[in-house]
Amino acid sequence: MMNNGVPRVAIVGAGFGGLNAAQALAHAPVKITVIDRKNFHTFQPLLYQVATAGLSPGEIAAPIRSILRSHRNVEVLMAEVTGFDLERRIVHTPEVEVAYDYLIVAAGAQHSYFGHDEWEPLAPGLKTIEDALEIRRRVLLAFELAERQAVAGETATPINFVVVGGGPTGVELAGTLAEISRHALAHEFRSIDPARTHIVLLEGGPRVLAAYAEDLSRSAEEQLKQLGVEVRTSTTVTKVEPGAVCLGNTRLPATVVLWAAGVAASPLGKALGGPVDRAGRVPVAPDLSFPGHPEIFVIGDLAAAKDESGKLLPGVAPVAIQQGRFVAKLIRDEVKSGGRLKTRPEFHYWDKGSLATIGRAAAVAQFGRIHISGFVAWLSWLFVHILFLIGFRNRLLVFIQWAWSYFTYERGARLITGRTDLPGWTPPAVPIEAPDLEEIRSGVSK
Amino acid sequence: MMNNGVPRVAIVGAGFGGLNAAQALAHAPVKITVIDRKNFHTFQPLLYQVATAGLSPGEIAAPIRSILRSHRNVEVLMAEVTGFDLERRIVHTPEVEVAYDYLIVAAGAQHSYFGHDEWEPLAPGLKTIEDALEIRRRVLLAFELAERQAVAGETATPINFVVVGGGPTGVELAGTLAEISRHALAHEFRSIDPARTHIVLLEGGPRVLAAYAEDLSRSAEEQLKQLGVEVRTSTTVTKVEPGAVCLGNTRLPATVVLWAAGVAASPLGKALGGPVDRAGRVPVAPDLSFPGHPEIFVIGDLAAAKDESGKLLPGVAPVAIQQGRFVAKLIRDEVKSGGRLKTRPEFHYWDKGSLATIGRAAAVAQFGRIHISGFVAWLSWLFVHILFLIGFRNRLLVFIQWAWSYFTYERGARLITGRTDLPGWTPPAVPIEAPDLEEIRSGVSK
Repeated sequence: MMNNGVPRVAIVGAGFGGLNAAQALAHAPVKITVIDRKNFHTFQPLLYQVATAGLSPGEIAAPIRSILRSHRNVEVLMAEVTGFDLERRIVHTPEVEVAYDYLIVAAGAQHSYFGHDEWEPLAPGLKTIEDALEIRRRVLLAFELAERQAVAGETATPINFVVVGGGPTGVELAGTLAEISRHALAHEFRSIDPARTHIVLLEGGPRVLAAYAEDLSRSAEEQLKQLGVEVRTSTTVTKVEPGAVCLGNTRLPATVVLWAAGVAASPLGKALGGPVDRAGRVPVAPDLSFPGHPEIFVIGDLAAAKDESGKLLPGVAPVAIQQGRFVAKLIRDEVKSGGRLKTRPEFHYWDKGSLATIGRAAAVAQFGRIHISGFVAWLSWLFVHILFLIGFRNRLLVFIQWAWSYFTYERGARLITGRTDLPGWTPPAVPIEAPDLEEIRSGVSK
Repeated sequence: MMNNGVPRVAIVGAGFGGLNAAQALAHAPVKITVIDRKNFHTFQPLLYQVATAGLSPGEIAAPIRSILRSHRNVEVLMAEVTGFDLERRIVHTPEVEVAYDYLIVAAGAQHSYFGHDEWEPLAPGLKTIEDALEIRRRVLLAFELAERQAVAGETATPINFVVVGGGPTGVELAGTLAEISRHALAHEFRSIDPARTHIVLLEGGPRVLAAYAEDLSRSAEEQLKQLGVEVRTSTTVTKVEPGAVCLGNTRLPATVVLWAAGVAASPLGKALGGPVDRAGRVPVAPDLSFPGHPEIFVIGDLAAAKDESGKLLPGVAPVAIQQGRFVAKLIRDEVKSGGRLKTRPEFHYWDKGSLATIGRAAAVAQFGRIHISGFVAWLSWLFVHILFLIGFRNRLLVFIQWAWSYFTYERGARLITGRTDLPGWTPPAVPIEAPDLEEIRSGVSK
């Protein structure tokens, strides 16, 4: 079972859970393989800043190898895990089979369209750097296309941003989009007025930020309204189509639709072969192990772990971090004692509080019974997030960007890369007789 | 001809030439439209830093609207110019027709494969942010794939980077790739040794940096060799194929091929309808006007302008900047005098010197008869390039990144985004019976 006596730990996923497990095992007598399909760790809480052109991808991501470089017992493998062989204790990837004595599955979650995957191209979610760049592209392009239309002498199509889902991501996106339209872009267009952009936040439940106390939900809604966001609660999206979102019989025009509504666990949860809940999460034992397999742990967004009262733990970074460290300590203890512990400890989440940002100087914070709103909450949010960013260099860069955009209202990373069209956007028909550029091009290159 | 008495100036392209023309015309009584297919200006001299993971795209690019925001007589249009109607004085784009009294065409250049466009997917060039990201992806992926192969128990394929073209871009790329392999990645892999990466720089002519004095070419070649780059001069590429570059009968294995060999002017030069030279450049009159059309100017890389001795001016930023300002002043003078100048001034390029960087603390500089090499040249290069970067914020960010990587040897922007394959790379065949992930995935999302 052991590899030259050194137990092998395979960690699938280098998000908050996997990375913290690897770091906490770095000085243990084990050989660790961290497998991720990306070569970098993404600081997900700041993804919305990339999506809204405030930060560059490189500032909220760090190469996994760099983070773990100093730990000589850690090997990093960039590969897509395709499945597991629980009997032979092997992780499958297309080119490599990774054998393990302990397996930590921390493959995270992705967005879910509740069975409507056809909505995805029309309403991108925000889980990866690529997602963030796609959202940034669409948001910035909406203004450029409207300006172009106005320059062409047509009545510019009103810009409508529709954000589906009133959780922390939806609230952040809606608030920041409002801020950009009213401030960052205010003096940059000659033919359209970005401040007239209409931003709607749709939430299926009765209130935004449902995981927070009711007074904070009310405060968040109030702060959103002050930023100019229209908040519609108890509203269900029945269809997303090019240029619009349908709410039953109402058709809401939408230049850009952003999806922050549903989360589904990685399919690797189901690939373990046991039961999963409706969102694809793996129900775990109190020690976070996969039932029937004490050598396998499931942590982070992929795990359906419960607190003392039987309530599901939220899919947030602090839970994943604490779970990663808990599992690492458990493995260390077992390796030290030379076998399975008779009674394993149970995982308990220590909730240090929750913070959600809404926009410039707007946020809510909940530390037990202490509820804070507005500027002070926003400052705490800023402080915590810069502090937890990985790497001193990134912290400094992000701090400068924020200080800069706080005082100038500017957004530094406003690049439109890739395609230059939007789903549902019909260009105005201007009859022109232009020369055939392709013909010219091929003439030049020969 | 005039629009309510206010002359209209259309500027095609917001590179160094177009942007400087717009800024120099900002206080003139004219209405300016800057048309670019991108929404941002790229600081091209630092593109190789994005390609080699030292800087993020947002740090060397700035939104055109931001740069020109304070100039109320400037309108920015993000659109692809498809042609010109010289008689009606109109610039064509798919949606908008831009009428002009003066037209400045500054559409720049792109790479050329000398009639072998089929090489492009195998050997990306470096002209745009997208190009730089593609090169970064391939370079970083080469190491990850080799490591994966080694972890799979196979003999890792040796990594060979082949840079085609020994001009400033080729020299920068080759030097920086050597630096990354020997330093930045040195302790990050467990199964391969990045320091053993083989970097070849191929140049068709007898020496690298042919535009510089001979002693500086020799010095550059020496500095490249010290960084571990193999330099092959008088070598012509006869074919690029997946995984290799052919030099006549020799087949040079190439994990990644980068193209820095040829430049062709934008097809918009030919679209003007006059003659163009072999590289697609437009021969211009001494006042930079398009022959026969005193109201049209061609500047920057698109123009074939000559100095006093009849030598073609090089395609570098200082030439474009000075041409942009020259043309702007000429237009200002004519607008002030109410008509065409009787005798127009001629453009003279003031050569302040040339700088080419090679790698960490390695560069060459030529200021007239003063030739400098090594650390001092590198420091001058650094100083000049940070100084000319647009925006205080970007200058500060870039300075921090450089200081950071100078002292730590780290490269901060090492993200592999997009596809995860390389042309010519065959994955090792490992037979596995993995569960069908697609099936699992669809099971979860429903």
